[in-house]
Amino acid sequence: MQRDITFKCTVEYDGTAFAGWQVQSGERTVQRVVEEAIGRILGTRIRVVAAGRTDAGVHALGQVISFTAPCDLTMARLRKGLNAVLPPDVAIVSIEEAPPGFNARYDALSRTYRYTITTRRLAVGRNYAWQVRYRLSPELLEQATAPLAGAVNLRGFSKKSDDDVYDTIIHRNNWTFTENNMIFEITAVRFFQHSVRSIIGSAVEVARGKESPDLIARILKTGDRALAGPTAPACGLCLVKVDFGEGTYGRL
Amino acid sequence: MQRDITFKCTVEYDGTAFAGWQVQSGERTVQRVVEEAIGRILGTRIRVVAAGRTDAGVHALGQVISFTAPCDLTMARLRKGLNAVLPPDVAIVSIEEAPPGFNARYDALSRTYRYTITTRRLAVGRNYAWQVRYRLSPELLEQATAPLAGAVNLRGFSKKSDDDVYDTIIHRNNWTFTENNMIFEITAVRFFQHSVRSIIGSAVEVARGKESPDLIARILKTGDRALAGPTAPACGLCLVKVDFGEGTYGRL
Repeated sequence: MQRDITFKCTVEYDGTAFAGWQVQSGERTVQRVVEEAIGRILGTRIRVVAAGRTDAGVHALGQVISFTAPCDLTMARLRKGLNAVLPPDVAIVSIEEAPPGFNARYDALSRTYRYTITTRRLAVGRNYAWQVRYRLSPELLEQATAPLAGAVNLRGFSKKSDDDVYDTIIHRNNWTFTENNMIFEITAVRFFQHSVRSIIGSAVEVARGKESPDLIARILKTGDRALAGPTAPACGLCLVKVDFGEGTYGRL
Repeated sequence: MQRDITFKCTVEYDGTAFAGWQVQSGERTVQRVVEEAIGRILGTRIRVVAAGRTDAGVHALGQVISFTAPCDLTMARLRKGLNAVLPPDVAIVSIEEAPPGFNARYDALSRTYRYTITTRRLAVGRNYAWQVRYRLSPELLEQATAPLAGAVNLRGFSKKSDDDVYDTIIHRNNWTFTENNMIFEITAVRFFQHSVRSIIGSAVEVARGKESPDLIARILKTGDRALAGPTAPACGLCLVKVDFGEGTYGRL
């Protein structure tokens, strides 16, 4: 007799060929592919819950999902079985038993996203970075994003849906600069649709000299989405980590 | 009146969707795509010569090519023009005028290839590494490839074509190990078809305990291809640099 087990599972995916995380009829989504794989290995149709509902084209190294299903396989066998039936653009990084009632969406304390900008024409790895064709000032990127700290309201950096709240707490944000790449990482309690890409689009307008350095501060203050720069392309974005307090379920 | 100029040009490409470098009728090859781009920008059909004729699926960060054509554009404009018409999986990294008669194949002093092995299931970046499913000993990888130094004959590591010579000089080889990746770089005067992939395939047989550590030494000595391990997949291989002595035309 199989008992019901609640699973916490870290998933990596290349978002290029997906219409995002969430199941939509007729679309190839990560959720659908993962649920089908679980169905094939465990023999039950179940629903999974994700910590971050990534958009079309967005990648994940450390997405965390939860689901409950009857299972008598060891965790190692389950992981191998799932990886054997998943397509090459999705991989189960780790899987473990979680306390009953664990929910990857509601129990997550924070999410960390990474956005990669490159200032050169790129062929190798081009699906994992935004190729910006103009010069960007690293100092202005840092100056532009400095106000993204502590309790903020991201209404101006969110795809409209009027009666929602947009409050979050940003724990950390930082830029890393290499010869050709500018990499932004940001950790917050939660994000809203297009938030990181809209922040990046605005920071780039500042860093190329099109907008004044206080642009992001003004958007935070007014909540006015019309002030924000164009939403940056999905390919540069990656969900790298989800934190649950008692441990880290993802890789940085 | 336009004068004939000889160009030295560094090219990056993602080999995933190419049938290799060299023009073959009906196939999408890098050479064909690059020659078509030059034809569109300069208005002449020309032939280009490459320092390394990479196989289907093999990538390049620092392939170097040469060609001669009439041109009155600046180098910066020519590079931008070519990048504007090239498909997203090919990029011109740099272009410069070379002395008349310069030939990227015959004037190259050495080529550096990189091979990336990963020991985990991979989704992001899966086109750029060989996913090996068994445990590998880093010590045995290093031991296996240690004999690849100085003047050697690579007959046993080359796709058969009987009446050729297989002599080369290996300047350097080294492994870099990270948590999940094992990266091999090798610099030699020249390589032959499948040489690096055949070396890697053999080293992996040693590192997983299937063959004795002197396997590569025995193949070098006997020239017996039947001793070599299976040829490693093309996706892990990348031509990173070509050296011409007076400067470096590529990026490491």
